[in-house]
Amino acid sequence: MTLSLRTRTLGASPVREILKIATQSETISFAGGLPSADCFPALDYASLDDHCLQYGTSEGDTPLREAVVELMARRGLICTVEQVLVLSGSQQGIDLVAKLMIDPGTPVAVEAPTYIAALQAFRFFGAAFKPFNVGEPLPDAPLVYINPTFQNPTGYCYSVDERQSIAAQAKNSVLFEDDPYHDLNFDALPTPPIVTFCENQSWIYQSSFSKSLAPGLRLGFIVASADLIDTLTYLKQAADLHSCRISQSLVTSFLSTDKMATHNAQLCERYQAKRDIFDEAITRHCSDLGRWTPPAGGLFFWLQLNQQIDAIALLQQCLTRKVAFMPGEHFYASAVNQSAIRLNFSNAPIDQIDHGVSIIAEEIRRAYEQKTS
Amino acid sequence: MTLSLRTRTLGASPVREILKIATQSETISFAGGLPSADCFPALDYASLDDHCLQYGTSEGDTPLREAVVELMARRGLICTVEQVLVLSGSQQGIDLVAKLMIDPGTPVAVEAPTYIAALQAFRFFGAAFKPFNVGEPLPDAPLVYINPTFQNPTGYCYSVDERQSIAAQAKNSVLFEDDPYHDLNFDALPTPPIVTFCENQSWIYQSSFSKSLAPGLRLGFIVASADLIDTLTYLKQAADLHSCRISQSLVTSFLSTDKMATHNAQLCERYQAKRDIFDEAITRHCSDLGRWTPPAGGLFFWLQLNQQIDAIALLQQCLTRKVAFMPGEHFYASAVNQSAIRLNFSNAPIDQIDHGVSIIAEEIRRAYEQKTS
Repeated sequence: MTLSLRTRTLGASPVREILKIATQSETISFAGGLPSADCFPALDYASLDDHCLQYGTSEGDTPLREAVVELMARRGLICTVEQVLVLSGSQQGIDLVAKLMIDPGTPVAVEAPTYIAALQAFRFFGAAFKPFNVGEPLPDAPLVYINPTFQNPTGYCYSVDERQSIAAQAKNSVLFEDDPYHDLNFDALPTPPIVTFCENQSWIYQSSFSKSLAPGLRLGFIVASADLIDTLTYLKQAADLHSCRISQSLVTSFLSTDKMATHNAQLCERYQAKRDIFDEAITRHCSDLGRWTPPAGGLFFWLQLNQQIDAIALLQQCLTRKVAFMPGEHFYASAVNQSAIRLNFSNAPIDQIDHGVSIIAEEIRRAYEQKTS
Repeated sequence: MTLSLRTRTLGASPVREILKIATQSETISFAGGLPSADCFPALDYASLDDHCLQYGTSEGDTPLREAVVELMARRGLICTVEQVLVLSGSQQGIDLVAKLMIDPGTPVAVEAPTYIAALQAFRFFGAAFKPFNVGEPLPDAPLVYINPTFQNPTGYCYSVDERQSIAAQAKNSVLFEDDPYHDLNFDALPTPPIVTFCENQSWIYQSSFSKSLAPGLRLGFIVASADLIDTLTYLKQAADLHSCRISQSLVTSFLSTDKMATHNAQLCERYQAKRDIFDEAITRHCSDLGRWTPPAGGLFFWLQLNQQIDAIALLQQCLTRKVAFMPGEHFYASAVNQSAIRLNFSNAPIDQIDHGVSIIAEEIRRAYEQKTS
């Protein structure tokens, strides 16, 4: 049996194994990026009819694409229905863009650190990563992947100036902006997508209904410059013909009322409260262990450790005490000599946060002590 | 802007354009493989709860995977839950298997003719096709793709002997059996999947709920030999994390009652009646124009024309008269010097069938006459 060469990058993923353990009951999980189960919207299942049971178009159902045009206008991007492609969740957008752009050896500029599953998908198609830090000149690459709003994993939100600069520097690249957390904005100034600063250049913007509504729907969307949208649609057709029409129908009817604004305001209020409780816990337990900036939106704290330790070993220790997080090193395209951990604050119940953080702090302290002893 | 090399195979597809026209109102469409809109099941939307809104596992929800194990036992395949991977429709299975197996130049054995979207997906990843006909020795290739039960496009159903022979010949290949029409069996003897004859070899079986229940759900499944299922699951995770959990929940509750057997019996009864009406229409209008075998199941008639004509030009003519079908040549991996057309009998209303077939017959006759004049 001879599998394709690209499957050789697909070894057992430590992250996948971690998440399996983390979803076991009794574990306090700061590991995944799961929405809080008590924040799901009340979807109108009674509105569903047989219409959504038949085959649909690869582009997506027109009413949903129209709703996306309106949603994007609120985010500052004026686009047409023809520029919108409905996705089966935004992970699919990463797969489609990888297929569109990446041959073995194709340079891909990525932030250091960046979204772990994007690294995996791009690596699978043979990407040669060119990592960059915020504020550094953009590396020369046909594809630039960026997650500028409450970034996964750092929570960083690019300023308007930084956004304009990225758009200008990516003039000869395809700029791929991944923006799942845009509306999970607690106390940052609203910032327009980077692609709103793109002029006469090729760009792909994607967002998701997984964080703002519910991940079980598996629904997201791409908006792309006119030169790319047809090819992306062909790729979508080859990948899964079209997205679930029941989900499309449910989201369309939710968006068509004023429910969305109310729902989003409630979501931000609850997540902001959890963020604050989390910040208090980290301040209480970790002030002498690392540095962090409380995120103004999104789902994650990024705790940079004062000493370089083995964060995977740290995780193993914490898992024996039923607490999970994500080691930082997996979010880098190439090795780094600095330790960090990613902590999700949206999913764990409020009354478990302080206890969970205190255990992680104890284990970090123990690792520091073992290092110096 | 430099796109990946593989996008060069993605030119405008004539089929895609045809289907767009065919879905316009007033057109009698024998083109797609759409289920009849009056045959959709009554799904229990009231059973849905918030449970299906959270992230799920890439493998699929366990109750659905357990239901697939039972479904496969009825088809003659004994497997474990661990061998089942839920798909976002079976088109996704083709994408995953292409990723698993195909590098540029990898030989892939395919029937001549075969399912058009499999050819497209395999070609996109660089497959070197090795076509074969029923009864011919299987070409030597790492991947063998076969659709043995009421094949798309020919409607052919392999005998048990032919199935055993394929399994034996594919001993050193990965056998990929695509079986979406298994339960749309009107009057054939039940035949077990080819993979039931596989011993100590690598195989992948896939089927779909699009034909037996509803395509808008976007739900199918893979069952694979133990050596392949983990890698396929990693590929699924990279493609779209997991499938829509609302669809998974709806299908699970439908399968858990005795509704499925009743629904399938009704579906077969209606489709058999349509098949008979279609056969009468072809007999009436096309007896001197071509050869066909009424299919014992599935969704298609395959009309092999007595003379070689341009089936795409024939289609253009028929579209001006508001009738659509699929030209046969697109179903072949390499050029053939024989004309055929594929006619779907499940979707068009009964009272339009005779009229639609009569128009196609008139245009075939006209093309024959133009050829000899």
